[in-house]
Formats: sequence, structure tokens, C-alpha cells
Amino acid sequence: MSSVLTLQVNADHEFRAHADQHASLRLWLRLLSCTTRVEDKIRQKLRESFDITLPRFDLMAQLEKHPDGLTMGELSRRMMVTGGNITTIVDQLEKEKLVAREVGLHDRRSFTVKLTKAGRDAFTHMAVAHEAWVAELFEGLSKNQQSQLYTLLGTMKKNLQNQEETS
Amino acid sequence: MSSVLTLQVNADHEFRAHADQHASLRLWLRLLSCTTRVEDKIRQKLRESFDITLPRFDLMAQLEKHPDGLTMGELSRRMMVTGGNITTIVDQLEKEKLVAREVGLHDRRSFTVKLTKAGRDAFTHMAVAHEAWVAELFEGLSKNQQSQLYTLLGTMKKNLQNQEETS
Repeated sequence: MSSVLTLQVNADHEFRAHADQHASLRLWLRLLSCTTRVEDKIRQKLRESFDITLPRFDLMAQLEKHPDGLTMGELSRRMMVTGGNITTIVDQLEKEKLVAREVGLHDRRSFTVKLTKAGRDAFTHMAVAHEAWVAELFEGLSKNQQSQLYTLLGTMKKNLQNQEETS
Repeated sequence: MSSVLTLQVNADHEFRAHADQHASLRLWLRLLSCTTRVEDKIRQKLRESFDITLPRFDLMAQLEKHPDGLTMGELSRRMMVTGGNITTIVDQLEKEKLVAREVGLHDRRSFTVKLTKAGRDAFTHMAVAHEAWVAELFEGLSKNQQSQLYTLLGTMKKNLQNQEETS
């Protein structure tokens, strides 16, 4: 291959690599933008309907999925949204008797946080509304499109998990 | 139609409606989870490589796209991530001479924020690394899958915009 041609091929490769990188960046910005829009909408509806913040709703959702309770560390790892101080949220929810702290069986210095009966009832009530809002926000996509998006994001999630494990 | 059959059909409709709602919720949680993972990774890399927070990077990115400057209100609307106080970030960046405040031509009480030459250079340097990280995080998806995802998210974004306009 002549050196001019080699240069040409290399330049094309670089151009393509750069174009691919740029496509990934555009994809990321669009993904972030969609997520932010839905999150903002849900944040607003939670405030209007239940006078509750999104991090507080998220924290109750994590506890609802773990009836045996979660430690503060586990809660912090499982939260889906940023921006709320977990200790402050737990303190407030405890004061309102929606969650309870339970001292650890084996280690009395550790404790887990659980939803109380009142907390579970309050969450269930909000979760029904939340699910309907989400369905409304996605209703512009057909069932088929939603299922394609779900599959693609599943592939993406698995890859991100693999990257984390091997890094 | 017999009343038993009507009931049966209604129950099926309700079941399907409920199943569809649930599918949207699962889709939303997966979308949120993918976005959070990528965001966390980028947050971590920005801190390790440039000792900079994600909101600060985001704010500089918005200014880079608007060379004529943005008001504080515009900045606040354009930010893609939550969790940073915009006034604090602008104050810090101004102290480091990476942004400058400019008094409005027509209204001396208003001002716009712009990147300085040093700010633009610093941002360009970080943006190159940022784009490469994003490409790496998405590389588990083929070019074709990325393009499908981009298209589906485009449809979703347009629908969300339409919903906002008509609400």
C-alpha cells in the first residue's frame, strides 16, 4: 500500500473513530435529557400531589422492596436519585412514624431501617399514582417501541455491569 | 354479550392496562438505572482526572455552547444535572478566572456569564476526555444498537416536549 494511501486509510479510521465517539456523546446527552425530563415531571407531581420530595419517595421505595430492612449503607447504595441526605430523610420519616430503626441482632451498634405499617400504606397509595404518571409520560411510545427500548437498555445495563466487574 | 362475559372482557382490559402500566414503570426504572450508572462513572472520572464536580462541568458545557453568555436564569434552566448551587459554582469559577460576569447592555442590573479564554481552553481539554469516556461506556452496544436507541429516545423526547406544550 502506498504511504499516501496508508495515510488516507488511517485518516478515515480516525475520522470514523471520532464520528463514532461523537455519536455516543449525542446518545448520552439524549438519554440524560429524557431521564431529566421524566424525573423533573415526577418530582413536580410528587410535590403537588403528596408534598413529598423525590429522594424521600425513592428511599421509601427501596425499603418497600426490602421488608427485612436495610442498613444506612445499603440504602445509600440503592438510592436511584441524588440530592437528598439519607440520614435527614430517615430522621424525618421516623419522626412521622413512617419508618422505624431496628437494632441489629448480632451487632448492637448497627441498625436497619424498615417501613412501619403506616409507612407501607402511605407508600402503596403514592406508588399507584406514580405508576400511572410514568405510564402517561411514556404513552407516546407504542408498546412495541417501549419493548425495544427496554431490551436495548437491558443490553446497555449488562455491559455497564460487566465493565464495573472487570475494572 | 352475557354479563359474565362483559365482566371477563373488562377484567382482561384492566389486566392489560395494568400490565402495560407496569411495563412502563419497569422501562422507566431501567432508563433511570442506566443513566445513574453512566452519570456516576462520569462523576467519578471527572473528580479523579480533573478534580472537578459534574455540575461544574455541566455549567461550563452550557457556557461553551453559548459564546454570547447566559443569564443565571438561563443557566439554571439549561443545566442537565441537579445537585449544584449555580451561584456558588459561578462564584468559584469567576475567582479562578474561568468565567466572567458581563453587565447587560440594556439593563445594568442584569448580567450574563461567559467563559473566559482560559475557561474555554480548560473546558476543551476536559471535553475531549469526557467524550472518550462516554464512548467507552457505550461501546458494549453496536453502532446499529446505538442508532436504534438514539432514534427511540428521539421519539420519546419529542413526545415529552409535546406533552409539556399541551399541559
